[in-house]
Amino acid sequence: MQVLIGGKPKQFRSVSYDRGRNAVVLIDQRLLPHRFELVRTRSYTETAEAIRQMVVRGAPAIAAAAAYGLVQGAMEFDGARLSTFRAHVRRVFNVLKNARPTAVDPVNAMNFVLGRIARAASVSEAQAAALAAATEFAERSVAECRAIGEHGLKLIRPGMRIMTHCNAGWLACVDIGTVTAPIYAAHAAGVKLHVWCSETRPRCQGSSLTAWELAQMRVPHTVIADNAAGLLMATGQVDMVLVGSDRVLGRTGEITNKIGTYMKAVLAHRHGVPFYVAAPLSTIDWTLTSGAQVPIEERDEAEVLGATGVPARPGRVPKPKRGSTPEYVLIANPGSRAFNPGFDITPPELITGIITPVGIFKPAELWARRAELGCTQC
Amino acid sequence: MQVLIGGKPKQFRSVSYDRGRNAVVLIDQRLLPHRFELVRTRSYTETAEAIRQMVVRGAPAIAAAAAYGLVQGAMEFDGARLSTFRAHVRRVFNVLKNARPTAVDPVNAMNFVLGRIARAASVSEAQAAALAAATEFAERSVAECRAIGEHGLKLIRPGMRIMTHCNAGWLACVDIGTVTAPIYAAHAAGVKLHVWCSETRPRCQGSSLTAWELAQMRVPHTVIADNAAGLLMATGQVDMVLVGSDRVLGRTGEITNKIGTYMKAVLAHRHGVPFYVAAPLSTIDWTLTSGAQVPIEERDEAEVLGATGVPARPGRVPKPKRGSTPEYVLIANPGSRAFNPGFDITPPELITGIITPVGIFKPAELWARRAELGCTQC
Repeated sequence: MQVLIGGKPKQFRSVSYDRGRNAVVLIDQRLLPHRFELVRTRSYTETAEAIRQMVVRGAPAIAAAAAYGLVQGAMEFDGARLSTFRAHVRRVFNVLKNARPTAVDPVNAMNFVLGRIARAASVSEAQAAALAAATEFAERSVAECRAIGEHGLKLIRPGMRIMTHCNAGWLACVDIGTVTAPIYAAHAAGVKLHVWCSETRPRCQGSSLTAWELAQMRVPHTVIADNAAGLLMATGQVDMVLVGSDRVLGRTGEITNKIGTYMKAVLAHRHGVPFYVAAPLSTIDWTLTSGAQVPIEERDEAEVLGATGVPARPGRVPKPKRGSTPEYVLIANPGSRAFNPGFDITPPELITGIITPVGIFKPAELWARRAELGCTQC
Repeated sequence: MQVLIGGKPKQFRSVSYDRGRNAVVLIDQRLLPHRFELVRTRSYTETAEAIRQMVVRGAPAIAAAAAYGLVQGAMEFDGARLSTFRAHVRRVFNVLKNARPTAVDPVNAMNFVLGRIARAASVSEAQAAALAAATEFAERSVAECRAIGEHGLKLIRPGMRIMTHCNAGWLACVDIGTVTAPIYAAHAAGVKLHVWCSETRPRCQGSSLTAWELAQMRVPHTVIADNAAGLLMATGQVDMVLVGSDRVLGRTGEITNKIGTYMKAVLAHRHGVPFYVAAPLSTIDWTLTSGAQVPIEERDEAEVLGATGVPARPGRVPKPKRGSTPEYVLIANPGSRAFNPGFDITPPELITGIITPVGIFKPAELWARRAELGCTQC
């Protein structure tokens, strides 16, 4: 999608692969919205570290990064024995998988690559197959986001006020985004809308990343504290809540998403506000039988106890003061500890619909329509 | 309450009056938890500004500050004509009242002082009466917090995990606090408990002030992002939600409190977690007939778009890096705008009980039992 550089739009993807250097190319999302910088990881362990440190984040984006990371690991192997190669790739798989445990997309993406490797007769054939598979996965991911946009567009009426949570934009995907796909599609079609960007503490991906994305695309938006969602819904100022997901449970209709999603779902339900989840097919987990089985990632206390931003003049609308390097400030009482779960689970009865690349489904329909939804393991 | 200075406890009140200098003495809450400093306002306009800028905040605390501010204004008058004095005091009243519009306590506190002035036969008699009244109001406020603690203590069972929102501790009152009163009473009685301090964006009074207070009193606590409240309740880790209020509507049982309170109330209701409100009598508004009539203060966008803290090393548990002066950092996309409502309204059906100095009431009982609750206007 476009990034305004010196006011001029330039096209970027959040994840790509540099074949010449065997590097995964990522937009460093830790520096946004204050600085736009590309990072090239030089090995699969660096890619895993970039996923862990959230240089790249968002379920579909870390899926593509993991798929390319698996390619990177495969390319790093310089022996000729296929069995040793396979053991090596399995290690690479586990390192990348464990970088962030809650999302299922990286596992699905890497399994897709592994499936293509399985038929290879030599290491070099396997390496070529891995790259072709990862590239296909990334391209399909972009196509899926586009399709989510087409289906989701039907839900958007002129003048709608859409509330988002966290960032499920193109930064969280390879391109286009999941939640942002219908928004960008509507905006491109000239449909007027307004986005309430929930800041999404503790890491504020809503106010830093979603707001940045929408500003690049010139989509009208307003940032709110997560705490303001209830008041806005209670006073009739929200027409739809639209969130992404890190894992949609195909068997139960539950979804896992950024901490705080569940609270918005409960409030939307109380106030009759439609609550939609946008997700590509790689986000669907067809194996787990309960949300309680999803490993909920616990992150550093520092994220909750402080915040990262650039020093600024705190006027009514603040402006960065010097440089553009984000700094960490401690907000909380020094010495107090924090609990920082990264995700929560929203039950199906609170979800109006799940916008997928192949249509919009009620959560309860997923299992019955699993063939349409590309369930290959079922 | 106690403040640990060099590890040793020293007693302070958050609001007091220095007669010799005709100054209101406040703990500068904008510097906490990083620096403990007292501020002396030199005029009633400075007191109003301190209320507006949240040097002092919390409904009962700004009530005492406003009452003393009214005294300050009265003392500043150096004429002898009682009618001119009264007109002057009325202006002082309005300036102080408009500093923060949502809380009813400052109005109730100043009306109490005005009532005592009304009978005075001379300016000096009125000035003396004003000081006596403000002092009485502040002392009564402390006594009310103590009584809230005694009533609230009955609700606390050993091992309870209590979730708070914002700061309704002694910093928000003259002393002891409302929400913290039962907590401190239980802690003093040796009852084990744990407090989940919701950080309370945008100003983070939970992680900065409540956590600081609890640390001074050595009460076990953990800071959470506001977004984590749903997960904690859904997984059975919260036994009670206990919040303060800026305005309890005596006629309807609605309460106004810091933005985000309503969301916690909705979630507590869904999960069968008792939701209690602690409030002194000055917080009860006997006139309004609907929460929709409460003026909801809209604050600076900068509060939502950034955060204030001290530069720190962002390790797992961060430590301040240099100095202890809070700095403002911009988190959000520069140029994006924000909406920053300060309060929301919680309806009576979500409130288990209101802990007052004269007992615990169901919201629906307030009006019928208004005589007990000191309704003088009814």
